[in-house]
Amino acid sequence: MKIAVDGMGGDYAPHSIIEGCIEACKTHSDIEIIVTGPKELLEKELSSNGYSGDRIKVMDAKEIITNNEHPVMAIRRKKDSSLYKALELVKNKDADAIISAGSTGAFLAGATLVVGRIKGVNRPALAPIMPGKNGPFMVIDCGANADCKPINLLQFALMGETYFENILNIDNPTVGVINIGSEEEKGNELTKEAHKLIKDSTLNFVGNVEPREIPEGKVNVLVCDGFVGNTVLKMYEGVAATIFSTLKEQIMSSFRTKIGGIILKPVFDKFKKDFDYKEYGGAAFLGVDGICIKAHGSSDAKAIKNAIRQAVNFKQNDILNKIRGSIEEKMV
Amino acid sequence: MKIAVDGMGGDYAPHSIIEGCIEACKTHSDIEIIVTGPKELLEKELSSNGYSGDRIKVMDAKEIITNNEHPVMAIRRKKDSSLYKALELVKNKDADAIISAGSTGAFLAGATLVVGRIKGVNRPALAPIMPGKNGPFMVIDCGANADCKPINLLQFALMGETYFENILNIDNPTVGVINIGSEEEKGNELTKEAHKLIKDSTLNFVGNVEPREIPEGKVNVLVCDGFVGNTVLKMYEGVAATIFSTLKEQIMSSFRTKIGGIILKPVFDKFKKDFDYKEYGGAAFLGVDGICIKAHGSSDAKAIKNAIRQAVNFKQNDILNKIRGSIEEKMV
Repeated sequence: MKIAVDGMGGDYAPHSIIEGCIEACKTHSDIEIIVTGPKELLEKELSSNGYSGDRIKVMDAKEIITNNEHPVMAIRRKKDSSLYKALELVKNKDADAIISAGSTGAFLAGATLVVGRIKGVNRPALAPIMPGKNGPFMVIDCGANADCKPINLLQFALMGETYFENILNIDNPTVGVINIGSEEEKGNELTKEAHKLIKDSTLNFVGNVEPREIPEGKVNVLVCDGFVGNTVLKMYEGVAATIFSTLKEQIMSSFRTKIGGIILKPVFDKFKKDFDYKEYGGAAFLGVDGICIKAHGSSDAKAIKNAIRQAVNFKQNDILNKIRGSIEEKMV
Repeated sequence: MKIAVDGMGGDYAPHSIIEGCIEACKTHSDIEIIVTGPKELLEKELSSNGYSGDRIKVMDAKEIITNNEHPVMAIRRKKDSSLYKALELVKNKDADAIISAGSTGAFLAGATLVVGRIKGVNRPALAPIMPGKNGPFMVIDCGANADCKPINLLQFALMGETYFENILNIDNPTVGVINIGSEEEKGNELTKEAHKLIKDSTLNFVGNVEPREIPEGKVNVLVCDGFVGNTVLKMYEGVAATIFSTLKEQIMSSFRTKIGGIILKPVFDKFKKDFDYKEYGGAAFLGVDGICIKAHGSSDAKAIKNAIRQAVNFKQNDILNKIRGSIEEKMV
């Protein structure tokens, strides 16, 4: 399997990217990686990490797309960027998957424009797996489509089902619509219509799920428009970060509380590990006709390695064909 | 000042409601309270709490509106409910304010239908004050209008500004649009248009605020549609609840960690106090032509007392006329 990795995307590129690629090659004996970016810089990074193998190749790309650029413009103009080159590898079937920790907007726009959609999928969607108290859950869409139609949410649900069944090995996963009330008639125009559509499908639909219940992780696949999904994702991160930074300040404020903090360090560490997004790799961009994994902007080597593991999983389980099959079968 | 209190709304009604009213009368010497609900029951509750004054009166209402009823239907059919009777008192100017801890939907529908809107306000909005790391902030709308138009968000911002200036004494409060990207062109159709409208107004607009930054509490008034606002509110509560219940389970799991928990109890307690919604009273329903305060469903006596304090504050600061003035002046 060949994997294209955007060597210049993310806060710690190219260092962490290269390190993650090297680590991944140690775990997966059957992968080849093509890293895109300034050839000299990346080769220097590889050698300073002591890498002398031939499974990681560098493809030269002189430009970089940043978070501050207009996504579609950047993709159209910067054909010599590390992201564009990596996308082209997938488009031309020179790679089976792409991983980038760079600009989410440019990645989503580029994947749709360059790689293209799976037939029948109107809108590809960003689908991170998030840690919940009772287990991991997926929020789809988490930001690719700020405005959605009800049919999009049904397709998100179908793609999420395929993911849970094949990647997480959960039979007949539960599906819910994120909504501000549990009753069928609650919500906005979008959720009311989507509720009806999904209820009439073959999916294991549990109805509406209120945001308060989301962190419990009792429902596998949660569908919503990209605006709401992104709000859920960012609130999850933001509230947790605020709570822990506030607690930390308080714990560090006196000798007595510092002692308490030391005793409870294993508890806080376990919590951080259990709720660490890095454990789950990146967010899959589902509905695109190629394996596209968006790694978190602040990805370290471990996160990149896990995103690569996720891409391998996708390929081994033939996810693209399974999504194709599910959409063809159920969207007619 | 006369305050109508729905005696049968909320998880701990009527007990906590009556207790909260009695407490409020001790603090505010210039208020009279009319509690609505089954006369015999409420009078028994008053006397079992040792109340023998004449500043809390009971108005008989035999019906109760529950959370499971269709809000508009319930308001139309149950004219003898504790909520409807309390709303009527405000409508007929027999009370200056209403407080209810019952069904949010019925309260919002009832306030709009029975009490009516302030002229020029197209959509009244639910506007709770939430605890942030750097100070309290308002999210408006938090659930009254699942679908909104850009003009609604501008009006929400104006009402929020009036609230901060007059109730929280913050001059020229900052206003932001909750959005999934900080740049002006980011977001959905609603936020893009609302951004333009608010930018062109006299408001102290700071631009878009990403959900991740919300808990920091750096911006005073955050506007959004009711679906997004309710999602923010419920995620805030849900993530915090999940974190603390998980930490608690871990802390209780061994002797060593229990000791750590005991040492850090003051830290956890301070945190809970700082982030306690009960401190802020209820959520104001702004844009209605009467002072309407929605107390949390799980309100105890303290929360009811604080909601009453909030209503007194509203009246003393003449909020309704100030909202009227702001809308008249700035919406022409």
